Amino acid sequence: MAVRVAVAGASGYAGGEALRLLLAHPEVEIGALTGNTNAGQRLGALQPHLLPLAGRVLAETTAENLAGHDVVFLALPHGQSAAVAEQLGPDVLVIDMGADFRLADAADWERFYGSPHAGTWPYGLPELPGARAALEGSKRVAVPGCYPTAVSLALFPAHAARLVEPEAVIVAASGTSGAGKAPKPHLLGSEVMGSMTPYGVGGGHRHTPEMVQNLSRVAGERVSVSFTPTLAPMPRGILATCNARAVAGVTAESVRAAYEKAYADEPFVHLLPEGRWPATASVYGSNAVQVQVAYDAAAGRVIAISAIDNLTKGTAGGAVQSMNIALGLPETTGLSTIGVAP
Amino acid sequence: MAVRVAVAGASGYAGGEALRLLLAHPEVEIGALTGNTNAGQRLGALQPHLLPLAGRVLAETTAENLAGHDVVFLALPHGQSAAVAEQLGPDVLVIDMGADFRLADAADWERFYGSPHAGTWPYGLPELPGARAALEGSKRVAVPGCYPTAVSLALFPAHAARLVEPEAVIVAASGTSGAGKAPKPHLLGSEVMGSMTPYGVGGGHRHTPEMVQNLSRVAGERVSVSFTPTLAPMPRGILATCNARAVAGVTAESVRAAYEKAYADEPFVHLLPEGRWPATASVYGSNAVQVQVAYDAAAGRVIAISAIDNLTKGTAGGAVQSMNIALGLPETTGLSTIGVAP
Amino acid sequence: MAVRVAVAGASGYAGGEALRLLLAHPEVEIGALTGNTNAGQRLGALQPHLLPLAGRVLAETTAENLAGHDVVFLALPHGQSAAVAEQLGPDVLVIDMGADFRLADAADWERFYGSPHAGTWPYGLPELPGARAALEGSKRVAVPGCYPTAVSLALFPAHAARLVEPEAVIVAASGTSGAGKAPKPHLLGSEVMGSMTPYGVGGGHRHTPEMVQNLSRVAGERVSVSFTPTLAPMPRGILATCNARAVAGVTAESVRAAYEKAYADEPFVHLLPEGRWPATASVYGSNAVQVQVAYDAAAGRVIAISAIDNLTKGTAGGAVQSMNIALGLPETTGLSTIGVAP
Amino acid sequence: MAVRVAVAGASGYAGGEALRLLLAHPEVEIGALTGNTNAGQRLGALQPHLLPLAGRVLAETTAENLAGHDVVFLALPHGQSAAVAEQLGPDVLVIDMGADFRLADAADWERFYGSPHAGTWPYGLPELPGARAALEGSKRVAVPGCYPTAVSLALFPAHAARLVEPEAVIVAASGTSGAGKAPKPHLLGSEVMGSMTPYGVGGGHRHTPEMVQNLSRVAGERVSVSFTPTLAPMPRGILATCNARAVAGVTAESVRAAYEKAYADEPFVHLLPEGRWPATASVYGSNAVQVQVAYDAAAGRVIAISAIDNLTKGTAGGAVQSMNIALGLPETTGLSTIGVAP
Repeated sequence: MAVRVAVAGASGYAGGEALRLLLAHPEVEIGALTGNTNAGQRLGALQPHLLPLAGRVLAETTAENLAGHDVVFLALPHGQSAAVAEQLGPDVLVIDMGADFRLADAADWERFYGSPHAGTWPYGLPELPGARAALEGSKRVAVPGCYPTAVSLALFPAHAARLVEPEAVIVAASGTSGAGKAPKPHLLGSEVMGSMTPYGVGGGHRHTPEMVQNLSRVAGERVSVSFTPTLAPMPRGILATCNARAVAGVTAESVRAAYEKAYADEPFVHLLPEGRWPATASVYGSNAVQVQVAYDAAAGRVIAISAIDNLTKGTAGGAVQSMNIALGLPETTGLSTIGVAP
Repeated sequence: MAVRVAVAGASGYAGGEALRLLLAHPEVEIGALTGNTNAGQRLGALQPHLLPLAGRVLAETTAENLAGHDVVFLALPHGQSAAVAEQLGPDVLVIDMGADFRLADAADWERFYGSPHAGTWPYGLPELPGARAALEGSKRVAVPGCYPTAVSLALFPAHAARLVEPEAVIVAASGTSGAGKAPKPHLLGSEVMGSMTPYGVGGGHRHTPEMVQNLSRVAGERVSVSFTPTLAPMPRGILATCNARAVAGVTAESVRAAYEKAYADEPFVHLLPEGRWPATASVYGSNAVQVQVAYDAAAGRVIAISAIDNLTKGTAGGAVQSMNIALGLPETTGLSTIGVAP
Repeated sequence: MAVRVAVAGASGYAGGEALRLLLAHPEVEIGALTGNTNAGQRLGALQPHLLPLAGRVLAETTAENLAGHDVVFLALPHGQSAAVAEQLGPDVLVIDMGADFRLADAADWERFYGSPHAGTWPYGLPELPGARAALEGSKRVAVPGCYPTAVSLALFPAHAARLVEPEAVIVAASGTSGAGKAPKPHLLGSEVMGSMTPYGVGGGHRHTPEMVQNLSRVAGERVSVSFTPTLAPMPRGILATCNARAVAGVTAESVRAAYEKAYADEPFVHLLPEGRWPATASVYGSNAVQVQVAYDAAAGRVIAISAIDNLTKGTAGGAVQSMNIALGLPETTGLSTIGVAP
Repeated sequence: MAVRVAVAGASGYAGGEALRLLLAHPEVEIGALTGNTNAGQRLGALQPHLLPLAGRVLAETTAENLAGHDVVFLALPHGQSAAVAEQLGPDVLVIDMGADFRLADAADWERFYGSPHAGTWPYGLPELPGARAALEGSKRVAVPGCYPTAVSLALFPAHAARLVEPEAVIVAASGTSGAGKAPKPHLLGSEVMGSMTPYGVGGGHRHTPEMVQNLSRVAGERVSVSFTPTLAPMPRGILATCNARAVAGVTAESVRAAYEKAYADEPFVHLLPEGRWPATASVYGSNAVQVQVAYDAAAGRVIAISAIDNLTKGTAGGAVQSMNIALGLPETTGLSTIGVAP
């Protein structure tokens, strides 16, 4: 019997990607699609790439319209998920692709998001130690941010194995879809093509405390994170370049061994052979993660680099992966590790 | 029992796309992968997006290595397919993604390709009148060129219904993957990003006689084609803008009716609602075709426009679609109409 | 003594490009800069590439603020130029980069622009027969549209020499800056990168009557134009591919001779050597025009192709060129034919 | 009297950019243009954007062909400059855009470049302390690498003022022109568009010792550099994100003050107002450098970011700037701080 899934916020990039993946999921039947300002419009005009759903009309995002489904994906503005989830009741699997239930520290939440803290839900990054168990059977999932997904998967094996100091200097390049579909002048094609530019420099990006939280948990001590996101001239993809000072005694071999161990059985994380490096094109549209790590002996530092598709593994793919675990389905159901390249 | 498929020329763009699609095909088991200069290398180094095949090693392209499969996809340089097909024998389904068996006119072939004419095989554009029947049960398939696919699907309903004069003025923009993976200075990223440029102007492009052949057949008289291809700064996609003088009595309604009739039952061709236009992004990585048509009353001309992914519907997706028909499988097996966007 | 120039609409793409060129003009002193919603802001925040003007503050677009200059460039929304020009008086050189004074036919204007017809000013495409003389000493200039610039320069020699029928089938690809700086969803980087899409198909684009006007004048009879613009994934540039049926007796040689004659003495139009084709990258940021022409004997058609930078020769460069002529300066003053490539 | 300049290696990206700038230089007359494999070809076919030089034919790169000029720009493969310079004699100003004379440490040179060390010439980054004086009147100039230019200008004020520990973690994104014009598969447009990928990770990039040299000199102690270059999907531009641990007592104000002091009188370096960040598009085609700096109090680190055009300030613009100084011309002659944007 099919799992009936509704998507709230179906006209944006996260909702569209969720639908793209759910359409290919063999156990899923797509139910209600809702929107806010776009309610009443056909999906064919809003998401012209989702041909099989072209004739569907968006309903308004109300608890009534979302009722009667096994799973509800939320792609809502920050601060709105708690109220919707409460109305849906405890038996519906609610998967929040927003930030509302990611951060355990209420002060962090309020400083970075400016609204009351809603609590935490099981964290949908199954590759982190302990995360899978918390997701099994859960009726609530907090999907990680796209940057924290890329950064945590690049760095956690080094921190978990105590190969590096409790620090991380991170520069990540993201495709523009990470900034959403609301039109703003600096996101115009004319502005972004041919340009690289940073933003949220100096600790200001909202994903910073989520990275600190993830890395500190595996390290067992507070990890200091200096994170600089940059906007790259491409629609999709994150390349996260992460750097941390190595502790004494670290070698290229010990670093590689830690990563090989961490990712030996992970279906979506691919530790590249030595000498090859992640490329966002290789994971375009797929749920795969490419990871590589190097030890710079001259500088005494470990460099860990990951590539993901920010909309797939970084948002909707991670959400479907977590849904599979929560529902007791095989974790890879309906998800691909094959990128669309070139 | 799985259909066992080999791919000759697995390191190039056409071969890589065939593998991307075949990996997702539920009835296929991927057998031998062969290459020429890349024989002996792992596919992970050549096609890093095909993660499930990363460990596979390319064999040399020999009849021996290709033997023992139900289907063999050929992605070889022009002029080499006939010899390989002959060695494979009449019982193997051979699908030629090259040009060797597309053109019926030997003089056309020799003028544009400069080697002896090898004959014709059933033509793998099932949407053309009569094509599907010729493909059913066939052991040989000539996959169309990418531009002729886009152009024929944009224009044939107009010519078949005699709505236009036997002429076509065509300007098509193609992503750079259409030019292949062999490195040439004018295909460098530094050269193509930010630039549009034509090539093969004035009747010189090899796909011109193939368009003439397709359109003349449906029109029942020789159609004159003036074709200008342009290179666009994107990796994939063809946007074909086709223009022909309307015959007397044509109206916007009669044009639309002809297209609605032609594409009412086609699973991969989507005639867009009025007022919306094809975009290559909407069919990125999918086998779908977006088509729209307009009648310009002031100029007395019909404008038909299509968008395809040149590697999918334009090459490997069309090949898999034809394979499905030849094998008696449902035509859409393993093929998607969902684009990867944004 | 320097020519004192004001720019109204300095925060948009046309105004910014005018300033980029005027900053490099040896006879110009930049005076007032005005804006509408951006009045009060520093130019450094709006046009960060114009470093020498970073500290300038935009005034409001009023006749008072624009008074006291020798030349005023107008980059205003359609329909606003007439009132401003009138207030500036007959002795100020007013250069309208908008559409208001381009079209002679009032009915055309009203159909395509929907406001009352304001009349015509000397047309700032000096390469057209007779245009230069009308610009000399004029106090009013109507700068052509970007597409009509590219198309007229590609085609007029063929029509003027009666080498083709009075028709033109045109497909032009434009960079996204042609659509302006106002943020709209379909112009987001996420939407345009990797995509080609048409718009205004079937005669609906506002530049169509301007092309008809230009070509009809040189042909001496009404030329029928079927124009399809497409949006290309690049910030700047227009590639115009123009096609017309050849009249009897035309040869490749006669076509080339007509173009060589037309452009023998033009400082900005470069007829490429045979075998080479225009590329928008080659004219990036320059006032140069690359033109090439071919005769397709099989189809009996002439194909003429041009590449320009839509913001430079297509807008602000053409404006400065016309200003030079109007002021009696050497036509090339302050303008470059060197593109920024790769 | 004009300065007569020859360019050896005129067919590549560095040579082409030198010619683009030299054409706009009011004191320069362009003399011999030489090439290696392209000798005998017209520049119009090799550098179609340099319209005024389209008819020039490349000579072979020999001392004879380069003789008789006041200045010779060398854009040659590594290891070839010394021999050419010697033949040109001590009175000719030789400007080496290659790496041969940049590194003082012979062991570093040999490890990273694999050929005998040729010595050092005055270093063409005038903004570094002491550099300008060494360039005045010099007959030899070693133009810096593109990455070291961006990184040194981003970081040297922090190291010179001892605001940070003697370390630097650097991630830089470069446009593809930095990789040159020789066609290689991974530089194809199909591969680079839509993709970010690192290379030379872990200390392997040849520009690393040059950064160490520059930063160590201003710091007065050895600075440890961990440098990760990444290839970005754009033709030009470098965005360098540089990160170093702050020493005790540092504040946002003290950091900003150091940068304001360092760049108060520099004509090409623009320290952005607080809250705005460098973008490569803003310096496209110009010799300007955008710099911004932040103090991340939570992480205790200084983040300094610069944007340059890798071909202009990063190569040929820096070369012309140094030529001006060496010849006693005003430093900014012929160089622009205006970017080509959008």
